[in-house]
Amino acid sequence: MKVGYLGPCGSYSYEAACRYSSKIAKESEYVALTSFAAIIDGVELGNLELGIIPVENSTHGAVATAMDRLLYLKKGIVCGEVIVNIDHCLLSLAANSDDIKIIYSHEQALEQCRNFFVSRYPHMEFMSCSSTTQACELASEGGAAFGAIASKLAANLYGLPIMEQNIQDNAYNQTRFLIIGTKQAPLTGNDKTSIVFAFPGDYPGSLYNILKAFARRNINLTRIESRPAKNLMGKYIFHVDFIGNCQDEKGTSVLYEIKSHVSWLKILGSYPVDTGTSKGQKEDTQCYVI
Amino acid sequence: MKVGYLGPCGSYSYEAACRYSSKIAKESEYVALTSFAAIIDGVELGNLELGIIPVENSTHGAVATAMDRLLYLKKGIVCGEVIVNIDHCLLSLAANSDDIKIIYSHEQALEQCRNFFVSRYPHMEFMSCSSTTQACELASEGGAAFGAIASKLAANLYGLPIMEQNIQDNAYNQTRFLIIGTKQAPLTGNDKTSIVFAFPGDYPGSLYNILKAFARRNINLTRIESRPAKNLMGKYIFHVDFIGNCQDEKGTSVLYEIKSHVSWLKILGSYPVDTGTSKGQKEDTQCYVI
Repeated sequence: MKVGYLGPCGSYSYEAACRYSSKIAKESEYVALTSFAAIIDGVELGNLELGIIPVENSTHGAVATAMDRLLYLKKGIVCGEVIVNIDHCLLSLAANSDDIKIIYSHEQALEQCRNFFVSRYPHMEFMSCSSTTQACELASEGGAAFGAIASKLAANLYGLPIMEQNIQDNAYNQTRFLIIGTKQAPLTGNDKTSIVFAFPGDYPGSLYNILKAFARRNINLTRIESRPAKNLMGKYIFHVDFIGNCQDEKGTSVLYEIKSHVSWLKILGSYPVDTGTSKGQKEDTQCYVI
Repeated sequence: MKVGYLGPCGSYSYEAACRYSSKIAKESEYVALTSFAAIIDGVELGNLELGIIPVENSTHGAVATAMDRLLYLKKGIVCGEVIVNIDHCLLSLAANSDDIKIIYSHEQALEQCRNFFVSRYPHMEFMSCSSTTQACELASEGGAAFGAIASKLAANLYGLPIMEQNIQDNAYNQTRFLIIGTKQAPLTGNDKTSIVFAFPGDYPGSLYNILKAFARRNINLTRIESRPAKNLMGKYIFHVDFIGNCQDEKGTSVLYEIKSHVSWLKILGSYPVDTGTSKGQKEDTQCYVI
């Protein structure tokens, strides 16, 4: 099975692809791609069986460019989700932390570890680069004066010693990925559905009517996110995830009602809920009801 | 009047600070700062009269790190907004576009002009840097083989010739900034109020109850945005903007009702609506009702 992810090899997307594929296939070929568009096009054109894209991080929020890409799905549907714990490590060839002057990483990873460095290693300076794996390359080439923030998996791939583990400021740092395929996931009884919609015009209570449709049926929402429609400030497209399947009775009925309130509705797909890796939490805490 | 903004000088934040201050003060001193935290601390400690921070862009969406900072306001309140058109220009010392090999800019600006370069100048390679103004410095030092994407204002400040104007893929590219001060803005009859809130626990229909409170009073929402509460995927803080003032009758009454549904509510402030620069659009289109 060919699975496309946002490379290079060793990224958190690679980790997510491995975790998901190992559950459903004996052997997978992982294809590192350079953009979300390339991943989705790969699935649409039949060059990939599955594509995996990050859509939200518990610290940073929505992965806007990935979410916007979902609007262009044609044959592709969302057929799964996987939640990965982001455990950043400080990697370096230095024998002593005093030798490290510059820390490389993607700007989001640097931001997620800022307090750790301010309190523990205030002498180290941040330098942003395009990915956590590029950071590993730079730290590996640069030698003892350089460090990288990246995953344990990347440390192994790039042969960089781990100086410290779990250095992110917030212990619960997780990223949620969606799996894009062309085959609908089977009903499991514990499914989630992702939809996107827009309103026809400028009248009060539009979003209220949508939430009423869910509330009346006692359907739990797990996410609501607005994205600019990209024509003028103040016009939005809404992304909503709810517990249930678009093929079951409640799901069909709520979607039918929503259609009457919106100018545009796209059902991205229904798929089994991933309860994630628990880190000492109750497994069901991934689904907070709003 | 001392006004803090996200530097360096020539950034779109600088442009927003100039636009806002010129309306309300004869003379202003603009202080370039390096983080949103420094801008807000400056206002809190009384070193600045006003601070200005970007909160959303019509193409890219929420400016997550700036929005998260608003939660930490103590004495500071939101007392204004300003909407700035983002008109990106291609700047370079090159006499001929064929000479330009590398284009520098902040990754968001690069992303906003991607199609323009793919169709017009496919030979140019993107290189991301920390700001549009750093891009100007790099293009200026680098010479004819380099270009920068930045504003007309930055072109003037850094003495870089403008090769092309308005090169962003979407003509309506605007950024909305909030003004942070310590004095409440006077009621104008055309005000907006920004609030943030969180829910006590995990029960269905929480957000529905909030929207009902607004809908019942026929109060228009202009923005709703969820931000992760940063402890576990699926827990959110909501940012809502609505038309009205927290001091008028309707505003007081809706906030009173909302308080009974949430575990935490912070009124960031009420301030006059900015209708922005119209670019051929109706002035009131900034406020789309959701």
